[in-house]
Amino acid sequence: MHAYRSHTCAALSAANAGEDVRLSGWVHRVRDHGGVLFIDLRDHYGITQVLCDGDSPAFAALEKVRAEWVIRIDGTVKRRDESLINAKIPTGEIEVYVRDVEVLGAVEGDLPVQVFGEPEYPEETRLTYRFLDLRRESLHNNMLLRSNVVRSLRNRMWDKGFTEYQTPIITASSPEGARDFLVPSRLHPGKFYALPQAPQQFKQLIMVAGFDRYFQIAPCFRDEDPRADRSPTDFYQLDIEMSFVKQEDVFAAVQPVIQGLFEEFGGGKRVDADWPLIAYRDALMWYGSDKPDLRNPIKMADVSEHFRDSGFAIFAKLLENDGTEVRAIPAPTGGSRKFCDRMNAFAQANGLPGMGYIFWRKGEAGAMEAAGPIAKALGPERTEAIRSQLSLGEGDAVFFLGGKAEQFEAVAGKARNEIGRELGLTETDSFRFCWIVDFPMYEKTDDGKIDFSHNPFSMPQGGLEALMGDPLSVYAYQYDLACNGYELVSGGIRNHRPDIMFKAFELAGYPKEEVEKRFGGMVKAFRYGAPPHGGCAAGIDRIVMLLADTANIREVIMFPMNQRAEDLMMGAPSEPTNEQLRELRLRVLPKEA
Amino acid sequence: MHAYRSHTCAALSAANAGEDVRLSGWVHRVRDHGGVLFIDLRDHYGITQVLCDGDSPAFAALEKVRAEWVIRIDGTVKRRDESLINAKIPTGEIEVYVRDVEVLGAVEGDLPVQVFGEPEYPEETRLTYRFLDLRRESLHNNMLLRSNVVRSLRNRMWDKGFTEYQTPIITASSPEGARDFLVPSRLHPGKFYALPQAPQQFKQLIMVAGFDRYFQIAPCFRDEDPRADRSPTDFYQLDIEMSFVKQEDVFAAVQPVIQGLFEEFGGGKRVDADWPLIAYRDALMWYGSDKPDLRNPIKMADVSEHFRDSGFAIFAKLLENDGTEVRAIPAPTGGSRKFCDRMNAFAQANGLPGMGYIFWRKGEAGAMEAAGPIAKALGPERTEAIRSQLSLGEGDAVFFLGGKAEQFEAVAGKARNEIGRELGLTETDSFRFCWIVDFPMYEKTDDGKIDFSHNPFSMPQGGLEALMGDPLSVYAYQYDLACNGYELVSGGIRNHRPDIMFKAFELAGYPKEEVEKRFGGMVKAFRYGAPPHGGCAAGIDRIVMLLADTANIREVIMFPMNQRAEDLMMGAPSEPTNEQLRELRLRVLPKEA
Repeated sequence: MHAYRSHTCAALSAANAGEDVRLSGWVHRVRDHGGVLFIDLRDHYGITQVLCDGDSPAFAALEKVRAEWVIRIDGTVKRRDESLINAKIPTGEIEVYVRDVEVLGAVEGDLPVQVFGEPEYPEETRLTYRFLDLRRESLHNNMLLRSNVVRSLRNRMWDKGFTEYQTPIITASSPEGARDFLVPSRLHPGKFYALPQAPQQFKQLIMVAGFDRYFQIAPCFRDEDPRADRSPTDFYQLDIEMSFVKQEDVFAAVQPVIQGLFEEFGGGKRVDADWPLIAYRDALMWYGSDKPDLRNPIKMADVSEHFRDSGFAIFAKLLENDGTEVRAIPAPTGGSRKFCDRMNAFAQANGLPGMGYIFWRKGEAGAMEAAGPIAKALGPERTEAIRSQLSLGEGDAVFFLGGKAEQFEAVAGKARNEIGRELGLTETDSFRFCWIVDFPMYEKTDDGKIDFSHNPFSMPQGGLEALMGDPLSVYAYQYDLACNGYELVSGGIRNHRPDIMFKAFELAGYPKEEVEKRFGGMVKAFRYGAPPHGGCAAGIDRIVMLLADTANIREVIMFPMNQRAEDLMMGAPSEPTNEQLRELRLRVLPKEA
Repeated sequence: MHAYRSHTCAALSAANAGEDVRLSGWVHRVRDHGGVLFIDLRDHYGITQVLCDGDSPAFAALEKVRAEWVIRIDGTVKRRDESLINAKIPTGEIEVYVRDVEVLGAVEGDLPVQVFGEPEYPEETRLTYRFLDLRRESLHNNMLLRSNVVRSLRNRMWDKGFTEYQTPIITASSPEGARDFLVPSRLHPGKFYALPQAPQQFKQLIMVAGFDRYFQIAPCFRDEDPRADRSPTDFYQLDIEMSFVKQEDVFAAVQPVIQGLFEEFGGGKRVDADWPLIAYRDALMWYGSDKPDLRNPIKMADVSEHFRDSGFAIFAKLLENDGTEVRAIPAPTGGSRKFCDRMNAFAQANGLPGMGYIFWRKGEAGAMEAAGPIAKALGPERTEAIRSQLSLGEGDAVFFLGGKAEQFEAVAGKARNEIGRELGLTETDSFRFCWIVDFPMYEKTDDGKIDFSHNPFSMPQGGLEALMGDPLSVYAYQYDLACNGYELVSGGIRNHRPDIMFKAFELAGYPKEEVEKRFGGMVKAFRYGAPPHGGCAAGIDRIVMLLADTANIREVIMFPMNQRAEDLMMGAPSEPTNEQLRELRLRVLPKEA
């Protein structure tokens, strides 16, 4: 017989009754029922109940084992009495009567993190003893989910004709937005490598090198300041690039992969097959967000015309200023003063003066009437025009925000979420996707300069010609995929033409020499026959979080850092040795006073 | 029609004759046949011949294109004349008559690396313009091979019930032998992370965390001094770990994966299914190497007894010293003075005084006779005893090396390779594997101390008890897989018992506190219920090199560093900015005078 097991702890059933078996695993739980010891023995695969009484030669030894010890037992499979069958686990029909036991790995002292029952501990404790925390069923399942998701993504990409290529992890520093992690070079003291923020330049170089459909489950590194839903060091993305494509080709390649993945692992939630294309500006207008949650049916609208020169003086006056508007958030079924007041308070808590509203109720004569001070000030005709524009009716409400869009839009988006949730309008059993397209190429910075608003490497819509006019009216071939309020994918059709690239950077204030210096590798490559190409990257951690239904990224990473970018289990980061510093010719400077 | 292509450059056949098509790709070659332009248009998938004459509106534009420009053409598929069919390419039956052409990506100036014909360039040039080099068919195919190998390994591991988990890339420094790459922490200035030399501790922690069969295609990082067949920064391994296993379970899991892989990608070479287990000491004795090439049938032997007190004074005298021996390298079919002298010269070129030999030839009377000075000195009886022991005959030879094994063994191994190759004894059309087992746990260092001879984390055979005797007689549960003279896999059954681990380190001179400090994360984990476990790691780059039949690792990596650990294309490593150094609180010290 095998030294450790004839079966796993999930393998035995009534069909094995009478067999002599050997099992190994962790002691999940011990119960002493008056001279009969019951132990739930757990391994990676499942749990089997083993038992022992004073008649067994193993009794004395088994009495000593405690939770989370690793033991090997030999015994005989017995059918349980009908009344004792546990239908919840695959091995619930049987138990194993123990004749021999061997301790393979004991526990010294007390367990700092209990596995059985998953009691709560501070996160720091759980991370310090991650190897115990991971034994819990919930985390164990999350890790398996993540593995299966990554595997499925890979298979789906191969099935679509993509090939996975590995790009360097120790490479050149590149000023792509976030901060690089640097790696000092020992062979070239004083020089540094960097860990890639993403394989962006490499995947484009792969296209220039004549490969056609690239993907990679790629580790990415950004030295970012801590945030709860973000790994402070490394994270993974499904990185994709294709040659000879337009934006719609990327969409056509990505949708079946992501949709199929969510259908496979979505736990039965509905996965919408209709992925609308929404222009960036429309997304902000309708949803107050460039990653809208379309499970929420609320669509905001511009209702400025009804307030212009109206009796509601606050808005009427405000609309006299350039660039202002009044935005309506319809709230079907929200037509009660209590609800409207609560949402008004919500807006105030989020830094706005408040949210005006109208709601429609059954009037005294049985007819519908509009209620609230705004309705009164506007008068019945304008109020009715608003109601009609938004298709609202008795029992419904509408909220108003006025001013410059950028000042209220973020709060409007939050209010939309809140209203959808509070009123039960937002679906909870579905995944809804949309592509956000037509991002503006440039924006005006606070000091009035023109800068890239998103990715400088995207192709401007209209090419070189478009760059000859007003930069602020140029859109980029750039896109995001939003799902349930999260950005899952981001990408673009790249600017593969050096002439257009230099012009695009020039508009943002970067002279040619600067571009050559910063992105020399890629720019040089574009001079030697570059194909049109584009692609995107999907956040793996984010996808797994959505599928595992958790908001904590550390629940979907095997060995995560804490929020201060420390590995509490391994003790990282730590002081280097003098020898290490000497080899790198580095000195650590004292803290400034 | 699609903006860039209706077909790839490998898709068209005679069945498409008459169709209007659109193709995009690189200009592989232009030929001007007196007013008719022929262009081989190349993409990721293949090559299609397109042509154009003065009657086409595209002629003037097409005349301007040069090698490696990216173009899009529209045209009509024509069957080639029977006599012009190229059976070597899938599209060889047709050509496309061009009516329209668009330049998608031109080449500015001269091509520093030509693609067509693959002419030779210095490696530095090829690495600087890697994006051009990769367009060559040979490298393109190597990259596809690598991708397919990695994919196949993954699928084979999943099929065997393994699950892939990702371990951290930014982690703690760990003194595991090689030198760490360090990553300075910005949030904790003065402290450093390290990139993992291998996920060794993490995979063991995954076992302690209750997972059963782990694998990962894992990036590994060692700051090693340059060597031709090694990447100076990062490399990939197939990393494997299993719980509740003995050594033979690991072998049983690995063999079908590796064997199947070689059968799949070995290009028709025979893949031996018999993987013998060879003890480390036997491997050195028989093959002069712990990674023997079993395609070579030569097996060395100890022939000391025949030389002891013999007339061949050099060896007879040498054998009077302790720890010496005479080793024979049989050389079937090597029985000519010319060959024997050449091998003697080989030994001298490798730092030995020479290699004595005997060879057997047809004597004057037609009977076999032994030739060479050693035969004369030994006398016929002893010479015959040697011949008989080694089963040699007329036309064969044997070479001798004497002294302490460690002084000649490496050269003996090389000579064995040379003899096998020179005499055509070594197979060239097969892959032969063997497991090297029973590595000694400890060795005596030059200064007479006891140290670990290989991996300190392997379980000593015989457990705690074995550590109570002579350390130098303890073997470890540690193993390598050798193939055709290369080490492909290395692994061990781990020491999961803190008591045995502390004792093992104590023998090597490491006090308990030192072990706790260096390997704290893992040692702590072993105190909370650790299962017996073991595994191995297989070098991906090495495997692909074997399958691609190349000895240059840069031929199987998409974007390799050069041998000075520089990325010539991206310009890494490079000077950091002052801002970067300030954030990390680091100063680069001047070069010492």
